[in-house]
Amino acid sequence: MRITEVIITPIAIPDVPLANTKGVHPSVFLRAIIEVKTDTGITGLGEAYGAKRTLTGLQTVAPLLEGLDPYDLRALRRRIETALPDGGGVNAPTALADHKVVDVVYSAFEIALLDIRGKEVGRPLYDLLGGAVRKTIPFGGYLFYKFAKQDMTFGPDIMGEVMTPDALVDQAKQFSKDYGFRSWKLKGGVLEPDLEIETMLKLRETFPDHPLRIDPMGAWTVPTAKRVADALDGVLEYLEDPCRGMDAMAELSALIDMPLATNLVVVEFEQIIEAVKKDAVQIVLSDHHYWRGATGAVHLGEICRAANLGVSMHSNSHLGISLAAMCHVAAATPNLTFDCDTHYPWSSKEIIKGGRPTFKNGTLQVPDGPGLGVELDHESIAELHTLYNKAMVKDRDDTDEMLKYVPNYERKVPRW
Amino acid sequence: MRITEVIITPIAIPDVPLANTKGVHPSVFLRAIIEVKTDTGITGLGEAYGAKRTLTGLQTVAPLLEGLDPYDLRALRRRIETALPDGGGVNAPTALADHKVVDVVYSAFEIALLDIRGKEVGRPLYDLLGGAVRKTIPFGGYLFYKFAKQDMTFGPDIMGEVMTPDALVDQAKQFSKDYGFRSWKLKGGVLEPDLEIETMLKLRETFPDHPLRIDPMGAWTVPTAKRVADALDGVLEYLEDPCRGMDAMAELSALIDMPLATNLVVVEFEQIIEAVKKDAVQIVLSDHHYWRGATGAVHLGEICRAANLGVSMHSNSHLGISLAAMCHVAAATPNLTFDCDTHYPWSSKEIIKGGRPTFKNGTLQVPDGPGLGVELDHESIAELHTLYNKAMVKDRDDTDEMLKYVPNYERKVPRW
Ligand SMILES: [Mg+2]
Ligand SMILES: [Mg+2]
Repeated sequence: MRITEVIITPIAIPDVPLANTKGVHPSVFLRAIIEVKTDTGITGLGEAYGAKRTLTGLQTVAPLLEGLDPYDLRALRRRIETALPDGGGVNAPTALADHKVVDVVYSAFEIALLDIRGKEVGRPLYDLLGGAVRKTIPFGGYLFYKFAKQDMTFGPDIMGEVMTPDALVDQAKQFSKDYGFRSWKLKGGVLEPDLEIETMLKLRETFPDHPLRIDPMGAWTVPTAKRVADALDGVLEYLEDPCRGMDAMAELSALIDMPLATNLVVVEFEQIIEAVKKDAVQIVLSDHHYWRGATGAVHLGEICRAANLGVSMHSNSHLGISLAAMCHVAAATPNLTFDCDTHYPWSSKEIIKGGRPTFKNGTLQVPDGPGLGVELDHESIAELHTLYNKAMVKDRDDTDEMLKYVPNYERKVPRW
Repeated sequence: MRITEVIITPIAIPDVPLANTKGVHPSVFLRAIIEVKTDTGITGLGEAYGAKRTLTGLQTVAPLLEGLDPYDLRALRRRIETALPDGGGVNAPTALADHKVVDVVYSAFEIALLDIRGKEVGRPLYDLLGGAVRKTIPFGGYLFYKFAKQDMTFGPDIMGEVMTPDALVDQAKQFSKDYGFRSWKLKGGVLEPDLEIETMLKLRETFPDHPLRIDPMGAWTVPTAKRVADALDGVLEYLEDPCRGMDAMAELSALIDMPLATNLVVVEFEQIIEAVKKDAVQIVLSDHHYWRGATGAVHLGEICRAANLGVSMHSNSHLGISLAAMCHVAAATPNLTFDCDTHYPWSSKEIIKGGRPTFKNGTLQVPDGPGLGVELDHESIAELHTLYNKAMVKDRDDTDEMLKYVPNYERKVPRW
């Protein structure tokens, strides 16, 4: 079996102004849809980031995959490394996921190749990863402070302005009603730390049994983070990336008992070893989009087990192909014991046949069809590709977008 | 696809009195041959240790595998853990591989299940491991001090007595002629350290370009090991298990530049982390027989890459199913950069159709057929099973066997 053609389709999906410590989500988010065709008639699917750096990487590599055996992941890796010699990794300008272009491009194609293999043998993707330990996948509700949307050209707002502790609790109540989530994660680093503490305490009061997390994306100094951790002692199940950088995380970790999680200071396998030596984090966030695909994410689970680290799952704005892949990875990662993150409720479009899957008590069933178990809705893809061309947004810049809402906004790391 | 039947056949294979620091090989070595049958008519093969503890484990688990889906490695693991609640691991009486019964039993069946999957989809086993980075697998010649065989009831001797540096060099010359090996490993810890140093220096003189290793299996104190390392500085590519225990290895490692390898102090994934923290070893020996099968061995490679550790491959007395599996694992482990160990030249029987494969310049081609790429020779199995019943050897005890050659022999750890 050989690859005959690879199609990369950039799409734009209406987004809403979700705030984080870097700024705010622009009016659309970008994804790249991947179709890998083979000489047996089987097509594999993938979904990746759609911003410039990733899209260019995918488009550069796509024509070079002709003739590749879908089983040969190591040849896939070699071809990508050759095609993208400056492709990033820990030495890239920043260690954010979408800068690790080689890993991101590899991950995107790896999923498509596993989808092909699953379809060939009539097996769900999780079977190629060693089998499912769970088929019901619990997701946590992902809460955001947000602005009321100013420009509705590309799509409506969801839930208007949410910029106070009380409004945030209302957001959680709405999500609880619509999706049945059993745990909450707040994207922090947006309001003054005292207001975010107040938010978490009010969430705890309203949802006494829901595990709670906050992720300020490195917005706090060590003393600030220590103060927040003390105030929320016994309230949080973990604290995600309170401080920026491995050494700051290690410094904080030595001061508190609360487990620290990360998707910022540990994004490469090599960094796990460093994190363990420094005892900088206790939980690593998995994500098949940059941890070298689904097999890489399963490797990550194994390494974390050996290193006595917990595993949770990271999310980025995404659609149904990514959601299916997340479910398969979660099914096949035994020590993924936390509810998975997902941005899914913050969009309302879908690109897979059958439309948007329904959450039940915050959970989804992992698709049981062959491979990923999803099929493309080409009409919807065409519509969102048209939006991509119309929107004229080719990159993500939350800080730039923030100036529309807060004209004198200035990015600061750490902010408090 | 479901498993319908599992057949475990213990066999005995004529061995020769190879010496090590624990004693000497008995007149036969034991293996267990595994056949896993499915409702699709496909049978998967495996080969494991055949001594009592492993055999009992395999036989206990075998009937419990009926109805298992061959893709579901995690259900396999659960069934084994349930069936063998005292199955060992790092807390077992000793951390030697054949005491890690759960891992050993899992590994044996895992290979058979991968064999089934490869056969189903018409793919060599290495393709299920991410693809082959090499198809020519280099093995090193495994040299032993040995006695002349006393009792030839079960089979002839190979090369008579080898108990001096000069005789050992002659052994290497013979192996070089017969197999074309391009590197040498000496099983040390048998003669006085000065004689083993002399042996290595004579090997270096005779084979100026062959990488050299010595493995005394923890026979030396730290000062003795330091003295040997100094005497062989620039001569060895690595020193394998010179001292017993992680802390002794760490103490030695801090004193010398020569890389230390191990298959004794790192036999569990958790121990890799400890070894890295203590900088106790620089190279870990892979072995699909106890590193949780072929997928586990590939995981090991990934973890070692992340931890900046080298990977080599361990061997035990074995036949052609194990040899094929070793080739597939070696093909699919990119950072396995050392020649693999193999005891293969020390036996002369075979249980696979087509008989014993031929080494060319010390290398073998990884089988290209579906799955492991080997088929059982049932006549040969029957013959060696008869020998198993006749030989009345049900366990391996090198120390007990040694008393036949050295009546006042006493096991000492460390010896020098
Ligand atoms: Mg995060
Ligand atoms: Mg050894």
